[in-house]
Amino acid sequence: MPKSNPGRFFEDFSLGDRIRHATPRTLTDGDAALYIALTGSRYALFSSDEFANQNGLGRAPIDPLMVFHIVFGKSVPDISLNAVANLGYAEGRFLAPVYAGDTLTAESEVIGLRVNSNNKTGVVYVRTTGVNQLGEPVLSYVRWVMVNKRDPGAPAPQEHAPTLMDAVPAGDLVAPPELRFSPDYDTALAGSSYLYEDYEIGERIDHVDGMTVEEAEHQLVTRLYQNTAKVHFDAVAQLESRFGRRLIYGGVVISVARALAFNGLANAALVLGINGGRHVAPLFAADTIYCWSEVLDKADLGSTGALRLRLVAAKNRSCASFPGKEDNGGYNPAVILDFDYWAAIPKRA
Amino acid sequence: MPKSNPGRFFEDFSLGDRIRHATPRTLTDGDAALYIALTGSRYALFSSDEFANQNGLGRAPIDPLMVFHIVFGKSVPDISLNAVANLGYAEGRFLAPVYAGDTLTAESEVIGLRVNSNNKTGVVYVRTTGVNQLGEPVLSYVRWVMVNKRDPGAPAPQEHAPTLMDAVPAGDLVAPPELRFSPDYDTALAGSSYLYEDYEIGERIDHVDGMTVEEAEHQLVTRLYQNTAKVHFDAVAQLESRFGRRLIYGGVVISVARALAFNGLANAALVLGINGGRHVAPLFAADTIYCWSEVLDKADLGSTGALRLRLVAAKNRSCASFPGKEDNGGYNPAVILDFDYWAAIPKRA
Amino acid sequence: MPKSNPGRFFEDFSLGDRIRHATPRTLTDGDAALYIALTGSRYALFSSDEFANQNGLGRAPIDPLMVFHIVFGKSVPDISLNAVANLGYAEGRFLAPVYAGDTLTAESEVIGLRVNSNNKTGVVYVRTTGVNQLGEPVLSYVRWVMVNKRDPGAPAPQEHAPTLMDAVPAGDLVAPPELRFSPDYDTALAGSSYLYEDYEIGERIDHVDGMTVEEAEHQLVTRLYQNTAKVHFDAVAQLESRFGRRLIYGGVVISVARALAFNGLANAALVLGINGGRHVAPLFAADTIYCWSEVLDKADLGSTGALRLRLVAAKNRSCASFPGKEDNGGYNPAVILDFDYWAAIPKRA
Repeated sequence: MPKSNPGRFFEDFSLGDRIRHATPRTLTDGDAALYIALTGSRYALFSSDEFANQNGLGRAPIDPLMVFHIVFGKSVPDISLNAVANLGYAEGRFLAPVYAGDTLTAESEVIGLRVNSNNKTGVVYVRTTGVNQLGEPVLSYVRWVMVNKRDPGAPAPQEHAPTLMDAVPAGDLVAPPELRFSPDYDTALAGSSYLYEDYEIGERIDHVDGMTVEEAEHQLVTRLYQNTAKVHFDAVAQLESRFGRRLIYGGVVISVARALAFNGLANAALVLGINGGRHVAPLFAADTIYCWSEVLDKADLGSTGALRLRLVAAKNRSCASFPGKEDNGGYNPAVILDFDYWAAIPKRA
Repeated sequence: MPKSNPGRFFEDFSLGDRIRHATPRTLTDGDAALYIALTGSRYALFSSDEFANQNGLGRAPIDPLMVFHIVFGKSVPDISLNAVANLGYAEGRFLAPVYAGDTLTAESEVIGLRVNSNNKTGVVYVRTTGVNQLGEPVLSYVRWVMVNKRDPGAPAPQEHAPTLMDAVPAGDLVAPPELRFSPDYDTALAGSSYLYEDYEIGERIDHVDGMTVEEAEHQLVTRLYQNTAKVHFDAVAQLESRFGRRLIYGGVVISVARALAFNGLANAALVLGINGGRHVAPLFAADTIYCWSEVLDKADLGSTGALRLRLVAAKNRSCASFPGKEDNGGYNPAVILDFDYWAAIPKRA
Repeated sequence: MPKSNPGRFFEDFSLGDRIRHATPRTLTDGDAALYIALTGSRYALFSSDEFANQNGLGRAPIDPLMVFHIVFGKSVPDISLNAVANLGYAEGRFLAPVYAGDTLTAESEVIGLRVNSNNKTGVVYVRTTGVNQLGEPVLSYVRWVMVNKRDPGAPAPQEHAPTLMDAVPAGDLVAPPELRFSPDYDTALAGSSYLYEDYEIGERIDHVDGMTVEEAEHQLVTRLYQNTAKVHFDAVAQLESRFGRRLIYGGVVISVARALAFNGLANAALVLGINGGRHVAPLFAADTIYCWSEVLDKADLGSTGALRLRLVAAKNRSCASFPGKEDNGGYNPAVILDFDYWAAIPKRA
């Protein structure tokens, strides 16, 4: 039996399995600096210990999206090494801030299984939890992936499609208890004067700027997350694939788009929840990401406001006309990401 | 009104305006490591806490040029998002060392305005100051940029062209008070036996080595500086530009050239002042930087010597023959940078 | 006399010379994060302070291979700037773990000299030692390089070819005294259930995954090591070379291959010794690295087991069929690296 990990096939998953993932990871200032270098993020809360401290946090936390990618990366060798496609996310909640020096581990529970009609693949649903060195959960989310069967003739497992919420209810969001936006919250330093009250449900924002992604860039950041999915790294193997080349990890698209979204949402730094997300089309090296946002909902969480935002990214074209779903129900061909999340934003004092 | 920042046009600046820039930034060991990875800098003072400590500093400071780029980057969204060209720098002085853990903010004052005769653009002069978390200024410099007018018919503003010094007088340079070059200053560890007394005014040094710059590299470091100028990042938008492709941030050229200048100026690590600088021609990805230096002046500051140096960088050709200004007054076509600065260098014990 | 360093030629070395190398270097969390980003390494011992601490170490040490590259890099300007080829390594021993915050310096002693029959080049053998800020050696190894003579007519020096061990004897390996693999060593977190007892001499492991290396990636990491060899960085100068383009530093191949070897050797994180290594063929940007390992020997060091491993890397083809030496004694044309080392691995409790 080979000592290298061939990855699980569909038959290797059973409902209720709990899988502890490898490579505990201490996040450091080095990771945070790389995240800025690789995404261009400018949110003050993650860039400045002073700014974070003025708003109740001990120091600048690690960007929650980086926490997501780190936890996600750990699950790849166990869950999605033989995945055909990442189908979706749901019920993502950030449960405690992560700071440089914290060590994260991750575990996934198989909460759903469904064989596809072709009998060659099946869908695996897992709830993945990231935990810090104190044993406190910092993140929980569901994802589902299409996984190859090893043997098309293998018997179908006990089927179970979990019931998932369309969105995390505002009441389930966990703002860090220590977060206290200052009455002197500094909008000049934050980069925008628009606060919770200034956003309206239905409002759309073009984030204007574009970011071209290079092969070296997406590989660097995806390796930083210790995500091992071959499709991102092995140009030779990808020659045999449908696209003939490396695919950029969808998390790179999410993070670059969120960094671009600073221009219009500078005060909505802290992601609290992930309601859903769809990687509508692949991104390749040398493509340029543009994006726009729509305010889907608002909620007053007491210590902070929260916006439910839809972040749509497109490639190689401006988002000034808000490309999204077309009249026929399909997406504009430039769209690559449709992401639905909650972010904290200060209320007016 | 859009919530995203369209950038100021020429008419939006008034003499005396003070603009506080966004995104306070805590610099960390992660930033310092990235600076080495991206430039190849080998100056002992910035590489080793022990070496810095032996020369009076608490630990290795952040390279002053990185401080410059970080402060500069903050000013871009407010000053030069609609800039046509960066025209020059003057009166740059580093006023206090910056260490990992320090948080920088930046502010610019509009000190000059001049409409161009075409009435489509104007020149904006700003003095930008970087400040640490204690409120101490760490850097002050003037830059001027050519900015588009929103409306060519807009009335000309109150004109004022500031009087700028050709060079920072040696007496205005601020060596860190704690800097005490050791009587046992270790030239072997520093990489060169040449100290203050060994350099002569008029002397020229070919720095020999070349460094090719990749698209991913300049984007990474420019994002690390949170510099948002579109010309560096958006390949699609650049297709419409004069050059048809992304331009490399001029600060990358300065820093790579300074890193190459180690080979000949290893003991002149600490930049104290920026007298002026001109980006003579653009650099593009896959170009190779070479450079040479000329000693313009020398000054004994007591605790340290200082060299006034001219750093000339060229692309895709050796600098063994010191390409610079030609007989006709123009530059050799390979020249990309002509930079004039002061650096501290130990005197013989 | 030029102030820039032209590098030593063969005639400039004398037997017994001790050369102190420039640029002392404080390693930080930033360097460790970059090492993960650039190699994709997933070894728990270097990724998690908690995991390291559970096994007796104060916190996660710097990967010994990074320590090797950092020390090696320092020696390049003094030893191999005019090298034609890196011929080999021997007698490498890691003598103390290195942690973020430690400062390394390096020194080399010339232990062998041999003129080649063409009289144009010679072989220089050096023993290089890396030392931390307490004066403790952290690494010692021998390497030999072919160096150009400045003048073919120069007299041959005193010749001496040192006697080098084929492999470091297990009894000479230095496991960190504080290393105490926990009786509860967590194989799930470590990523593999295979421990010392599970590996057999002669066993071969295909590491399955492939990693494509980009120009920006190898330049970034080689600059991080402050390795100045022109062949890696100067595309213009390389046009004149035999290969016409930049060569990737052999240490990049070693580190990427070791990162891939996680998949099959996850518990053999800590490299203790380097027995030898040959860069069989060059790697260029856009090539993809695959690798396999062979267990050459095993040793029980008391506090830990140790495996002597042969790591063979090939480019642009799978290693499923273990490409290595062919029947004619030469290497399979895809092979780029044949590396022989010792690594610690926990024994069953």
